[in-house]
Amino acid sequence: MRTVDLIEKKVQHGELTTEEIAFLIKGFLDGTVPDYQMAAMQMAIVFNGMTDREATDLTMQMMHSGEVVDLSGLKGVKVDKHSTGGVGDTTTLVIAPLVAACGGTVAKMSGRGLGHTGGTLDKLESIPGTQTEIPLDRFRRIVDNIGVAVIGQSGDLDPADKKMYALRDVTATVRSIPLIAASIMSKKLAAGADAIVLDVKVGNGAFMRTRAEGETLAKLMVEIGDRVGRRVIAVITDMNQPLGMAVGNALEVKEAVELLSGKIPAGDPLYEICMLLGTKMLRLSDLADSDETARNMLTEALENGSGLKKLRQMIAAQGGDASFLCMERIDELVRVREMTPVYAAEEGYLYAIDTERVGTAAQMLGAGRATKADTIDPAVGLVMKKRIGDYVRKDEPLCMIYSNDPAKTEDSAAMFLSAITISQNKPEHHPMVYCVIGDEN
Amino acid sequence: MRTVDLIEKKVQHGELTTEEIAFLIKGFLDGTVPDYQMAAMQMAIVFNGMTDREATDLTMQMMHSGEVVDLSGLKGVKVDKHSTGGVGDTTTLVIAPLVAACGGTVAKMSGRGLGHTGGTLDKLESIPGTQTEIPLDRFRRIVDNIGVAVIGQSGDLDPADKKMYALRDVTATVRSIPLIAASIMSKKLAAGADAIVLDVKVGNGAFMRTRAEGETLAKLMVEIGDRVGRRVIAVITDMNQPLGMAVGNALEVKEAVELLSGKIPAGDPLYEICMLLGTKMLRLSDLADSDETARNMLTEALENGSGLKKLRQMIAAQGGDASFLCMERIDELVRVREMTPVYAAEEGYLYAIDTERVGTAAQMLGAGRATKADTIDPAVGLVMKKRIGDYVRKDEPLCMIYSNDPAKTEDSAAMFLSAITISQNKPEHHPMVYCVIGDEN
Repeated sequence: MRTVDLIEKKVQHGELTTEEIAFLIKGFLDGTVPDYQMAAMQMAIVFNGMTDREATDLTMQMMHSGEVVDLSGLKGVKVDKHSTGGVGDTTTLVIAPLVAACGGTVAKMSGRGLGHTGGTLDKLESIPGTQTEIPLDRFRRIVDNIGVAVIGQSGDLDPADKKMYALRDVTATVRSIPLIAASIMSKKLAAGADAIVLDVKVGNGAFMRTRAEGETLAKLMVEIGDRVGRRVIAVITDMNQPLGMAVGNALEVKEAVELLSGKIPAGDPLYEICMLLGTKMLRLSDLADSDETARNMLTEALENGSGLKKLRQMIAAQGGDASFLCMERIDELVRVREMTPVYAAEEGYLYAIDTERVGTAAQMLGAGRATKADTIDPAVGLVMKKRIGDYVRKDEPLCMIYSNDPAKTEDSAAMFLSAITISQNKPEHHPMVYCVIGDEN
Repeated sequence: MRTVDLIEKKVQHGELTTEEIAFLIKGFLDGTVPDYQMAAMQMAIVFNGMTDREATDLTMQMMHSGEVVDLSGLKGVKVDKHSTGGVGDTTTLVIAPLVAACGGTVAKMSGRGLGHTGGTLDKLESIPGTQTEIPLDRFRRIVDNIGVAVIGQSGDLDPADKKMYALRDVTATVRSIPLIAASIMSKKLAAGADAIVLDVKVGNGAFMRTRAEGETLAKLMVEIGDRVGRRVIAVITDMNQPLGMAVGNALEVKEAVELLSGKIPAGDPLYEICMLLGTKMLRLSDLADSDETARNMLTEALENGSGLKKLRQMIAAQGGDASFLCMERIDELVRVREMTPVYAAEEGYLYAIDTERVGTAAQMLGAGRATKADTIDPAVGLVMKKRIGDYVRKDEPLCMIYSNDPAKTEDSAAMFLSAITISQNKPEHHPMVYCVIGDEN
């Protein structure tokens, strides 16, 4: 088998066999398929795509390129949740404990933030003492004891994905639905989950810009799950503005604590997306036989405080100081040198938000990394005070910036304002959820 | 400027600027643009193409990546000819001396054969003593003295093309019209010609399989010439069967000597294509103001023997033994251990020829290289006895195989027969020339 013939086959719209995909991935890892051939193949896939069968084979080859986490010793359906990345998306910190409080088993591996989107690990680490690099044995023990743990992906997991993604990143081949699907699904499958709820974000703050793109990606990932015998539901949700009001690590932890403390009402976007994802997770876990039952269970766990208690248990089990996780003390985590309100230049309706720029405005304060080497300031970020469709008066701030550096405050405020469109016309209503894929009920 | 952004631009159908193309080619040569990024860019170009302006900039950057041969000291218009490669194409050995005999200045750099097509250098070297690696000063002196020399491309010429082609060869990015055009034109321009006649072959023995592909390539190369102030004419000619009857190095030299000795009549495909190319070369050299005048000049040089004399002068000047180049002695160059006729399995019309397989049949005898390291047996090859449309009886050989190894004879004969389609129906007539591009007269 010659790699050049496989590339040519893909250029000519051919379908690669299971053996050919195995040859490529194994060869790429052992160096017999050099970077330049894999780069050419990836670019050919950007243009000519892959069949569902090819994407599934690619996923399986990548999944088995490294360690596959064995969660079979844990009781119940091991359910995972994955978001394709957005701004102000702190859903994991809410629903992982909430689902566990309802009896679910949530053994989750998360990533760090890079660019304009935040990472769950960075948010967790903004709680003093919290460890996210935890050996698998201890990880399993925590999940066994309290039903939930959220840690970083083990270094031995899915090396093919790491190597392929690094190459895609520098060869403009990131935007390929089958390559994205295989990258996400191979990691999720290697992490050992039986069932996965996927939150595919679409909009100007998300990697998928259009609903059509998001649906194509979601359908493929559900199909891959189906082909390998895992239960997968995908929801397509809006990311044309930050999901929650907070953008920043401890600020998002605070918003999660507020939600788990019943301080955020039903109807709020973060609340509703958490409920939707949690509902699907409970259903896939066979803990509820209808969305209504599941939602009632989640609401109860919110109202009786068992969700917040579970978050505190989890943080304590991961070495963190859970005493901050209550309404009385949470503000200690977001203490900064200055809090600066940002006002609009004119009155009118908040018509549109360039969500990626809002993420960048937070990143500029130190809430995110531009490169992997950057360190994060856990306390900084911004809190939106308005949502799309709100009327904004001149004396009402659009957001509050939490900063430890006056120079950065100024740059961040300018970036934030460049993200905002004020209009005399009221914008059309954005749905929070576009559709659900893979849920036949 | 970041390479990944340039690749992304090309993926998004953007047009690269002159500066961006310069950045890419210089970076590729100095190593700051690694192979994998160039491979991704080349694949994006395979799919999204280049504008004429981009292809011209690419050509100029490649041309200036190494030495540019200075022929300005030579008198007259320096005219070159290039064929995109075919089987049994010995036109250079005929028209280079013939045009020189008519007063033209032909300072030509040629390539070696690889795969199923022959190389002019290999054919020249089948004449004992002939050197093709000749320093530029001596090359210019030979052209100055006798009007013609054909040598190998200097190692310092167009290093960008060498590096890009080596990468394309292993990444399935060979088939891109702008990359092919830039590769050919950058080499021709670096070799110093003022005017270039291009023979773009189309058909099953050529790299371009369809007339449409060939025309697109030809138009682009003429356009590039126009944009950089060189006179370029392209002819699109048929390669659905070998051009001449001989396929093999000394065998093709013999056919050239036969043609230059007046032994091949007008109307024969090799004769006519030589006349067509020679006509355009004389016209571009300002030595004839009409095709008719040019053809008359060429015919006279054929008939009075001055073309053959020029070939002998050239070979002598390049160190070869020109005494073989006459009808009396030429057979000494094609002496082999066995000459084997190959017969068709059934009677009928010679309906079609898989020309690439005919080239491969000759290569299997030792007439060509499968890899660059292979050595060539100059005497071996095959001579076609029939052309498409001929009626073939059982006792009439289709071809004669010239071999120095009985085992190879058998394999080659089998390969040759697999290339032949005999039918009871007479095939449609194939034109020898499809069209001429870039000649407004």
